[in-house]
Order: sequence, then structure tokens, then C-alpha cells
Amino acid sequence: MRDNNTAPHLIIDGLQYCNWSEKIFQQMHAGRVSAVHVTICYHENFRETVTNIEQWNRWFEQYPNLIVHGKTADDVRQAHADGRTAIIFGFQNCSPIEDDIGLIEIVHSLGARFMQLSYNNQSLLATGCYEQEDTGITRFGKQAIREMNRVGLVIDMSHSAERSTLEAIELSERPIAITHANPSFWHPALRNKSDDVLHALGESGGMIGFSLYPHHLNHASDCTLDDFCGMIARAAEMIGIDHIGIGSDLCQDQPDSIVEWMRVGRWSKTIDYGEGSKDNAGFPPQPEWFQNNLHLQNFIDGLKQVGFNHQDVAKIMGGNWLSFFENSFGSKL
Amino acid sequence: MRDNNTAPHLIIDGLQYCNWSEKIFQQMHAGRVSAVHVTICYHENFRETVTNIEQWNRWFEQYPNLIVHGKTADDVRQAHADGRTAIIFGFQNCSPIEDDIGLIEIVHSLGARFMQLSYNNQSLLATGCYEQEDTGITRFGKQAIREMNRVGLVIDMSHSAERSTLEAIELSERPIAITHANPSFWHPALRNKSDDVLHALGESGGMIGFSLYPHHLNHASDCTLDDFCGMIARAAEMIGIDHIGIGSDLCQDQPDSIVEWMRVGRWSKTIDYGEGSKDNAGFPPQPEWFQNNLHLQNFIDGLKQVGFNHQDVAKIMGGNWLSFFENSFGSKL
Repeated sequence: MRDNNTAPHLIIDGLQYCNWSEKIFQQMHAGRVSAVHVTICYHENFRETVTNIEQWNRWFEQYPNLIVHGKTADDVRQAHADGRTAIIFGFQNCSPIEDDIGLIEIVHSLGARFMQLSYNNQSLLATGCYEQEDTGITRFGKQAIREMNRVGLVIDMSHSAERSTLEAIELSERPIAITHANPSFWHPALRNKSDDVLHALGESGGMIGFSLYPHHLNHASDCTLDDFCGMIARAAEMIGIDHIGIGSDLCQDQPDSIVEWMRVGRWSKTIDYGEGSKDNAGFPPQPEWFQNNLHLQNFIDGLKQVGFNHQDVAKIMGGNWLSFFENSFGSKL
Repeated sequence: MRDNNTAPHLIIDGLQYCNWSEKIFQQMHAGRVSAVHVTICYHENFRETVTNIEQWNRWFEQYPNLIVHGKTADDVRQAHADGRTAIIFGFQNCSPIEDDIGLIEIVHSLGARFMQLSYNNQSLLATGCYEQEDTGITRFGKQAIREMNRVGLVIDMSHSAERSTLEAIELSERPIAITHANPSFWHPALRNKSDDVLHALGESGGMIGFSLYPHHLNHASDCTLDDFCGMIARAAEMIGIDHIGIGSDLCQDQPDSIVEWMRVGRWSKTIDYGEGSKDNAGFPPQPEWFQNNLHLQNFIDGLKQVGFNHQDVAKIMGGNWLSFFENSFGSKL
């Protein structure tokens, strides 16, 4: 009989936005990462997003032994069995659906499985966390949530403001995700989430992926693995072991011009530093224990050190995301 | 033991472009039509084509007991078992892929399974049958054929000119289709196909769907069912029973403004009558024995009358298209 305690963990990262290359796909492979939710849009409209999907299609054709387009939980299980990485598409903004509710089913047909209702600014659907006023989910937003629920496109509120996030959790008939953020109780960044949001998320069956982006970390780039894993232990106590995972926000090999695009897009003629500042405008350096996909393995020991058992580690490393994918990516019957 | 001779035929129509409505979907249902390849584009660019797909998605949501989106041969078999009609998307032009080879996989992901390399005019890929000169498959056309072969998007040469059609048959590594046309030997319309094309098509494993559009018929609207089925018998002798089916080109309930859009699109400021004329500019009247989807059943007797046995009738009514779908719609491994 197989000893489950020695089987390799199925690892899923709930969000990355790297400067993709064969090197990174090889690191995913070597790190035994079975699935990554990758950002394919920040501010792109529908046609531009399609161009980004075309680029991924070309990578799938070029690197069939390393990566595969993941659309279902079964695709992730198959990738795990094959030693490949299932790439799951997501948007950090609702710009790809423009003002057209019919595009929700279209982007789902093209493989999108996560969409943030807003990035940092007010969108057509919800309010971003950098706005002064948060007016909650808009009229279009309510229609979009219903349609996203219908087709199986997950609502992601990582960058949205508090009221909008709470309303999305309330309005959505299916659990939502916060793919990449940390609890405010650990580090009070604007992008991190309040106890109220975390409680509502857990009670509704949602998921949070914990972020390794230095601006979201206690002591930023100097954060320790032990401190990070201790935060996970506190969060598990607060909202339950079944609702947490990793969403590293890894932006490996990106030039600083990309963080400017993420922050400013086409909406401002003057620079906005977002979570950075004039003196710290670029991508902050990653903690040395989390530089690339090989380092996801480091969490396994880190989580054990703070007291998680084998089964709990399996849930946090990928099992919870896999269950969430299973229940979230199909159409609602 | 089941007597196959009494089982209802699986009926597939290789092309229609109706003014879709619940009435027409009900007629498909009552006529036991298991699949229809529907035109969703004549001159539309990518974004406009997506809007047309959105409209179909809404119909699938509204009429789930009548129609279902068909992407595979198995979808057609399931629709047949369920008493529904599988709707298979196709384009009568290459305008949806614009100048972007990556859009071929994108439109396949969205469900497209047939694309004409040209409508009546020169396109970026091939020459249409109304041009004075036919320069054959273009540079982009050769790349597009390879990509269409790879992803499983069928090359349809219904409206293309002779040389382009013969070159497409030669260049394509997978059998192509002429979804809606008739043999020139029966009625020498510009849109009908020469013996050379028919022979090359049959020898390469391709398919032709015989058209009921009056301009393609001997004696036009006065064509008899017997004459039409006699033409099918001659074609079967010429290219083999396995390469023929129905592609009715039914344009039920369309206003005459639509035939003008089909002919002129946005490419001319003056009217072009296509196969019509100033005195016969609109849609010509259908023969009384083929007005709508209920009348596809009429061919079963018509084909028997000209000497086809039960098995041959089954092939012509849908079996051949089903086999072609089976071999054509998947990606090439």
C-alpha cells in the first residue's frame, strides 16, 4: 500500500506574472509545480488580451513537455501525473470584457478562469483599493457576477477595495478568490485584507492565496520564511485550513518598465508609484528564499516548522486550490 | 436485434445561413436534423465575428432543448441521441482572422470548424470565383493552411476560384470541404465546381455538400427533386459515395438586405448582383420541395427513387459528414 506521507505534494501557485521564458518553464518543471494561475492582462482590451493568449498558444506549441493549457482540475491532475505545469489564464482587471457581458463567456471559452473585478482603480464593475471612495459593485458589476457564476469564471478581488470585496462575496452565488494578498493583521498594506474580508471569504467557501510580493510582506524583502509561515498558521486558525493556499505574485525577470505598465497603464500621463515610491519605484527584490518556482518547495519545510501536519501542508501547497478549481471552473448547471 | 434499415437517419446539413429564430430551431427539431454547419461570418472582422458568436451563445442559453453548440463528432452523436441539433460554426470568408495567423487557433477555441479561404473576391489567402485572375494560394494562405491543418479548422473552398481550390486541395495535409456547391456538369454556374475539382476533391478524401440555392440548380427555382437527386447519383459515380453530402445553403426568412450584405459587404460603393441580376436582385424563391429544415426528410425518398440503397442514403444524409467531422475537427497529433 502506498504511503501517502511520502508522495510528492501537488503544488499550485495561485498567481504569477513572470517574464515567461523556457528558463522559467524549466524551473516550474524542476520545482514540480503542477499548476500556475498566470496573469495575461492588466489593462488590455479584448483584442489585446486575445493577442496575449496567442502568445501563450505559441509557448504551448513550443514547450509541450513543460507546460500545457489548464482549463479544469482534471487538466491539473493530468499535468501532475505527466510532470508538466498546467497554465491557467486569469485577468487582473475586467478590461478584457470591455462593456460587453457576452465577452464573459467568450473569454471563458478561450480559457480564462479568473478575473479581478477591478485592478487598483475604479472599473466598470467595482472599486479598486487605491480609490478614495468605494461605491461597491456597480450595476454592470452585478450582471457580470451572475454571468461569471454561470459560465465558471472565478471572481478575484485581490486588488479591489473593502466594500466592493465584501459585496462581491455577498452577491456571488459561488465562492470567490483573493488569489494574491496577505492579511492586514500581519502587514497593514493597502492591498492586504482586513479581518472582516478574511472572515467573510472563509465563511463563503472562498480562497486566499498568500503573496510573496515584498510590498505585501512584513519587513518587505527582509521577511523571513518563518514569519511568513507563522502568518499562514494564524490565518488558518482564523478562517480554516481549507481556504488558504499560495498566490506568490512572482514577477520573475520582469524589467521595471512592466511595474510602471501595471500601475499606470494608459490611464495617467503622470507616474503613479502604487505600492512603491519615487526612491523605490521598480520591482522590489524578492526574499532570498523565494526567487523562483524552485523555491515553492521551501514552503513545505517552512509550514512543517510552524506546526502543520502532512495533510495540512498538502492542502496549503495545492490541494485547496485543486478543490476550488474543481468546483469553480465548470458552468453552473 | 435492431433492424438498421428502420433506424432514423442521422441528418446533417453542411451549410445554412438562415435568419435564425425559435421557429427555425423548432423546424430543425421536428425535421430530426442532428447537425447544421451555420455561417456566422461573411465580411466581419475578428471582433465583429465574436459578437456573432455571443449571439449564438445567447440562443444556446435560451433554447437548450432544441440546439447545442457542436464542436466534435461526438457532440453530433449526442445531439442525435437527445433529439437536439448541434450547431457547428463556420466562416464564409477569412476576414475573422484578419492578418493574424494566431487568430486561427483562437477562432477554433471559440468553436469555429470551417473557414472559407475566400468569399467571392480576392482575400489575403486565396482568390474568389468572381475575380478575373486567379493567382492561387497566397504566401499567408500557405501558412494559414498549415495552421488550420494543425488545429482542426476545415478549409472550405465553396466560393473560391478553380486554381486556388486545386492548390488548396494539394497543399492541405488534411482533406478539405466544399460545403455548398454543385457540379458544373449539371449546371454551369460560376459557383459550381468543375470535373477537375470534383475528382481532386474525391481523391484527397474531401467532401462536397450539394446546394439547394436556386442559382446553383438546374432550372433554378423550378428544379425538381428527381433532377437534383439524379445529379447526386452522377456525382457519386464520379467521385465515390463516401465524399458527398448535403450543404443546402438554406437562407430561410432572410430579408433581401442580407443578400446585398453577402455580395457587397463594405468593399464596394456600387451594387454587385453576384449570381443575381438587376431584375432578380433578391433571394430567389426556393423549390417548393425544399423550403425549410423539415424538407431535408424529402431527400430520403428522392435518393431512394434514383437507386441509392439504405446504406448509401444514410451516408449522403449525414454519415459522410459525421465521418469527416470525426477526422477533421481535432488537432493533428
